[in-house]
Amino acid sequence: MRPSGRTLGQIRPVTITRQFTTHAEGSVLIEFGDTKVICTATVEVGVPRFLKGQGKGWVTAEYGMLPRSTHTRMRREAASGKQSGRTLEISRLIARALRAAVDLKALGENTISVDCDVIQADGGTRTAAITGACVALVDALNYMRAKDIIKTNPLKHMIAAVSVGIYKGEPVADLDYPEDSAADTDMNVVMTDTGKLIEVQGTAEEEPFSFEEMQAMLELAKNGINELFDLQKAALS
Amino acid sequence: MRPSGRTLGQIRPVTITRQFTTHAEGSVLIEFGDTKVICTATVEVGVPRFLKGQGKGWVTAEYGMLPRSTHTRMRREAASGKQSGRTLEISRLIARALRAAVDLKALGENTISVDCDVIQADGGTRTAAITGACVALVDALNYMRAKDIIKTNPLKHMIAAVSVGIYKGEPVADLDYPEDSAADTDMNVVMTDTGKLIEVQGTAEEEPFSFEEMQAMLELAKNGINELFDLQKAALS
Amino acid sequence: MRPSGRTLGQIRPVTITRQFTTHAEGSVLIEFGDTKVICTATVEVGVPRFLKGQGKGWVTAEYGMLPRSTHTRMRREAASGKQSGRTLEISRLIARALRAAVDLKALGENTISVDCDVIQADGGTRTAAITGACVALVDALNYMRAKDIIKTNPLKHMIAAVSVGIYKGEPVADLDYPEDSAADTDMNVVMTDTGKLIEVQGTAEEEPFSFEEMQAMLELAKNGINELFDLQKAALS
Amino acid sequence: MRPSGRTLGQIRPVTITRQFTTHAEGSVLIEFGDTKVICTATVEVGVPRFLKGQGKGWVTAEYGMLPRSTHTRMRREAASGKQSGRTLEISRLIARALRAAVDLKALGENTISVDCDVIQADGGTRTAAITGACVALVDALNYMRAKDIIKTNPLKHMIAAVSVGIYKGEPVADLDYPEDSAADTDMNVVMTDTGKLIEVQGTAEEEPFSFEEMQAMLELAKNGINELFDLQKAALS
Amino acid sequence: MRPSGRTLGQIRPVTITRQFTTHAEGSVLIEFGDTKVICTATVEVGVPRFLKGQGKGWVTAEYGMLPRSTHTRMRREAASGKQSGRTLEISRLIARALRAAVDLKALGENTISVDCDVIQADGGTRTAAITGACVALVDALNYMRAKDIIKTNPLKHMIAAVSVGIYKGEPVADLDYPEDSAADTDMNVVMTDTGKLIEVQGTAEEEPFSFEEMQAMLELAKNGINELFDLQKAALS
Amino acid sequence: MRPSGRTLGQIRPVTITRQFTTHAEGSVLIEFGDTKVICTATVEVGVPRFLKGQGKGWVTAEYGMLPRSTHTRMRREAASGKQSGRTLEISRLIARALRAAVDLKALGENTISVDCDVIQADGGTRTAAITGACVALVDALNYMRAKDIIKTNPLKHMIAAVSVGIYKGEPVADLDYPEDSAADTDMNVVMTDTGKLIEVQGTAEEEPFSFEEMQAMLELAKNGINELFDLQKAALS
Repeated sequence: MRPSGRTLGQIRPVTITRQFTTHAEGSVLIEFGDTKVICTATVEVGVPRFLKGQGKGWVTAEYGMLPRSTHTRMRREAASGKQSGRTLEISRLIARALRAAVDLKALGENTISVDCDVIQADGGTRTAAITGACVALVDALNYMRAKDIIKTNPLKHMIAAVSVGIYKGEPVADLDYPEDSAADTDMNVVMTDTGKLIEVQGTAEEEPFSFEEMQAMLELAKNGINELFDLQKAALS
Repeated sequence: MRPSGRTLGQIRPVTITRQFTTHAEGSVLIEFGDTKVICTATVEVGVPRFLKGQGKGWVTAEYGMLPRSTHTRMRREAASGKQSGRTLEISRLIARALRAAVDLKALGENTISVDCDVIQADGGTRTAAITGACVALVDALNYMRAKDIIKTNPLKHMIAAVSVGIYKGEPVADLDYPEDSAADTDMNVVMTDTGKLIEVQGTAEEEPFSFEEMQAMLELAKNGINELFDLQKAALS
Repeated sequence: MRPSGRTLGQIRPVTITRQFTTHAEGSVLIEFGDTKVICTATVEVGVPRFLKGQGKGWVTAEYGMLPRSTHTRMRREAASGKQSGRTLEISRLIARALRAAVDLKALGENTISVDCDVIQADGGTRTAAITGACVALVDALNYMRAKDIIKTNPLKHMIAAVSVGIYKGEPVADLDYPEDSAADTDMNVVMTDTGKLIEVQGTAEEEPFSFEEMQAMLELAKNGINELFDLQKAALS
Repeated sequence: MRPSGRTLGQIRPVTITRQFTTHAEGSVLIEFGDTKVICTATVEVGVPRFLKGQGKGWVTAEYGMLPRSTHTRMRREAASGKQSGRTLEISRLIARALRAAVDLKALGENTISVDCDVIQADGGTRTAAITGACVALVDALNYMRAKDIIKTNPLKHMIAAVSVGIYKGEPVADLDYPEDSAADTDMNVVMTDTGKLIEVQGTAEEEPFSFEEMQAMLELAKNGINELFDLQKAALS
Repeated sequence: MRPSGRTLGQIRPVTITRQFTTHAEGSVLIEFGDTKVICTATVEVGVPRFLKGQGKGWVTAEYGMLPRSTHTRMRREAASGKQSGRTLEISRLIARALRAAVDLKALGENTISVDCDVIQADGGTRTAAITGACVALVDALNYMRAKDIIKTNPLKHMIAAVSVGIYKGEPVADLDYPEDSAADTDMNVVMTDTGKLIEVQGTAEEEPFSFEEMQAMLELAKNGINELFDLQKAALS
Repeated sequence: MRPSGRTLGQIRPVTITRQFTTHAEGSVLIEFGDTKVICTATVEVGVPRFLKGQGKGWVTAEYGMLPRSTHTRMRREAASGKQSGRTLEISRLIARALRAAVDLKALGENTISVDCDVIQADGGTRTAAITGACVALVDALNYMRAKDIIKTNPLKHMIAAVSVGIYKGEPVADLDYPEDSAADTDMNVVMTDTGKLIEVQGTAEEEPFSFEEMQAMLELAKNGINELFDLQKAALS
């Protein structure tokens, strides 16, 4: 039933390439099928002004798409002079999710900035970004420990994310672009590898969804994300 | 246990004042306790460029806060030259929710713009805004029918929204500011009066939440929103 | 002769509601007939950079209109990314007028920011804003004395403002929208309760005006403003 | 008593140089003592969107200062990305004053844009700008008649402007920078050569001013402006 | 003498990967050593307003750097709200160079937009971008011919570019970052495969350069660029 | 052959007027024929943040055009809210060229900002600006020595600039607007009075140029610039 021939709960092939670029403390190319996102983590001394002097660190994130990562060219946000609401919303989501993975006290007064830049889009860019960003974050934290910038590992747990939705009346996992653009409901789920939820964002694009559909989608998400944790761990080992 | 003395599922006193200002086709002051939002609906002929010639209408929304609606003064967004990510995110949420309530075909090539301006904030401004905006929208649609701009009523169902969360380990409904700023998890739920979900946005602010907590929060949201539907209907009758 | 049936020098019914919102140190809803403006005064420690270390305080103001405070919806200035020349001009006028009422030395290195937000417009929004802002300012100064932030009252005198104009060849006071949009000349006058002038801004919209007309308008303004001083004092007592 | 040794009502030496630059339809360098402003008038076919199809023309104006026209360098507005409130306020004032001099119907659907750029500032830049802009406007209107773009002369009357103020307790005309920065009150007056008022903008910078002082300032303004009309006419003959 | 051990005229290893991403009509990853740039060419019907109705096409280009393509993270231009002068200057350079390669008449009223996004920077990003962009442009033109959008091939000649400079007193070709940041002079040269010059931009960073040094640099550039033409042709065959 | 009747290498009459305005430490009006640019140099204590504490000074520059300095009116950049790529590119060019003339160590922690504002444009505005800016810079440096702000003269050599190009197949010097808009190639050359090159920026507008044409243009530039050095020295003596 799915355009790609996948089963309802089947996620796309995922590849995670570490050290994709050379300058960043963490640099990951993550691919969810044809969706490709470069995630780089930058370590900087110091924290934003509102946190100064509290002995805590900060994790932030920015999301962007190359103008022709999509079917038709989008206007370059740097040229139009502002980031769209969608861009800001996704940046905030990624940043919140990553902060939920880190003990900011253990990070000291340091900041990790994660940039997620989509070079090719085929649905699910924000969930791919979160999943890849977590790996880049781990590399950056390992760099900090190796350089003795921090004494203990601030990572509380891994996080990963997948999109689920109602497509042609059925719950499906990891929607690609043809499914995403036709789905009744789209839901992004971020989880910890300890089995808990970090974010649930479900939206009825066309048709309201029932509590039962909500349950079915959450179930698919849990299974898909568990597969992603295995892939993250394999990439990091 | 709650600072306000409310029971876990109890929402704040809600008042809905229609015709609050005189120029708008729909104008509502909604109060969720000390949270006060002015919601105005404006009817305009024509649609945005991307919809022209398709025989469909459009519903959009913008959210804003007066600079001193909060405990300390926030910088005026018009003066700083841009809307924050939070503002854009909430504007997009309100607009999506309202569009899910309207048959855009039946609206014809007309646009309804809903402005939600917070004059006093005490937690839950976005859910109050959605609940009040729906009433303003109904007034605007009634105006259009009275003026014969549309032939049939495009309203598919009422919508309303409430926030729920995990506060001191317990699920609670309609968090006020003291609860909101201390909650582990915050979730906004938008529903139809036909018992279905439009939006679910749950975020772990401090601690990840379990699937069981998610269920408990959804249950509280359903009950709270059903009370709001009664209040909307009373206001409109 | 006037659309409202008022006599030439008659101002509209004015109501002044203090403590309109709860967070601000001064919060006033002022109504000049159907014109309604929320004026809040915020007290903040410190002064802008150009004043630092001089032992003086600062008073500033910002003006805004809700998008649908007017007959047709105006674009939200926060969304368009800049404030119009009209908005900035009125903000500067209000701020200058308020500063003329305060002994900045006696204020110490503190700043009072007054926000004037129009929720419904029917002509004369800037003069209503100034008149209401002065009451909010007084409440903020009283707050500062009660909290021992300042030792003496920095208020030099009350200020209030009214618009006057030439409408159908006759001088009139406190123009409402139907008069304002048809007037030959429009003049805004700000005075002290000691009988002196703070600002006079007269503009020939259609026809130049004579020195005699100027005199007649000033006379009406003086009388109207004196009524406003009585209303301010009643509200503050 | 005046730093320059002038009598109370004496304006500075004024020179008006026409055809100062070659491209513009009207181009004037006006000097009020050490204040120097380039005023160019540009004729363009067509009108702004809000006037289309009404058979009327438009006159607009923009004001700017070169960064080092002042004692210390000001930040270039093009570089800071926005025009200050002061700049916009003066631009609006000049444009309004010029429109009051022109029969827009007789102008046809054409626009005249007047740019007033201060190359050296010593007080009174806005009044010099208005006085010079009117001469540039006349040249542009003469160009239009010579080219048969318009059939009749749309000029209703000449306009000119001067600043007056209360300096050390005395009313003075055409304040230079040392006076302007120390004056209690500053008032800009725009008049027609038919003896009527176009704009009166008086501001108490330090001390409120009395109705008698207002009268005295208006009297000085009338005399000074009448001298300017003679100088404009000499320049144009 | 060179940090990389290269001879004075030796360029870095260059790889050109076509079809790097799937959506664009032309998509190239070009690598000059550790400098990596994604160049995508987008074909769109229509031309910018200033060209409408002239029967000619347009070629434009935009340049950007991912925030962590460099040694330390740069602020994201989309977030800061404007593109730097350097970014705009390079965008203009690339666009001018590409337009010099195309017969705009033969392109018809179509636009090709080329995006050059640096994912890893090690000196020479603009010359790598031009060299890769030309290959992406050729692919886009071939796409247009295959789709019968154009009848003849508008390509007049290939273009390619290399940087040259004076490093430690010697002329060198294709400077990498360690050389670039220490060079006395830096010059970018764009040529056609017919042996002519399109752009020469030489800048004395530290020391002025002699006419003889200019000659020596041009000679190195010619040789380096000729190697690039061979690599482009191999990639396209 | 040239529209102006000049010989191929003949530059236009050049006049340099020092002390053109009164406030700036250096103020020059430079005229290359009908091209007129005001260049002012401002001395300020302190340096930009990235240079603090290094004991070095800074020289920067900004370029602008009055809206009607050109044949048709251009939009005012301060009003459009951003500077064009062309403006930024020329500002960067002028600043780089001036820095190449100054020993920044000898300047101490001071900044010189040079503003180049075109009041009338007839081709070659950037080269006129550089040539005039150098004279204004010398005046500012002399001011600093006279005020004992610096101990030694930081000027390493004079700089001047001229444009050259290929017009109707022939190399010409100092192109005016009719030539510039029809030239095949346009090249701007900045030199020191010690006979070396600071900047060479050649662009094929229509036709690529040969290495021989490049040589011929450089030769014309050298001769033209040498004439400019004589004129600068005469103006400064």
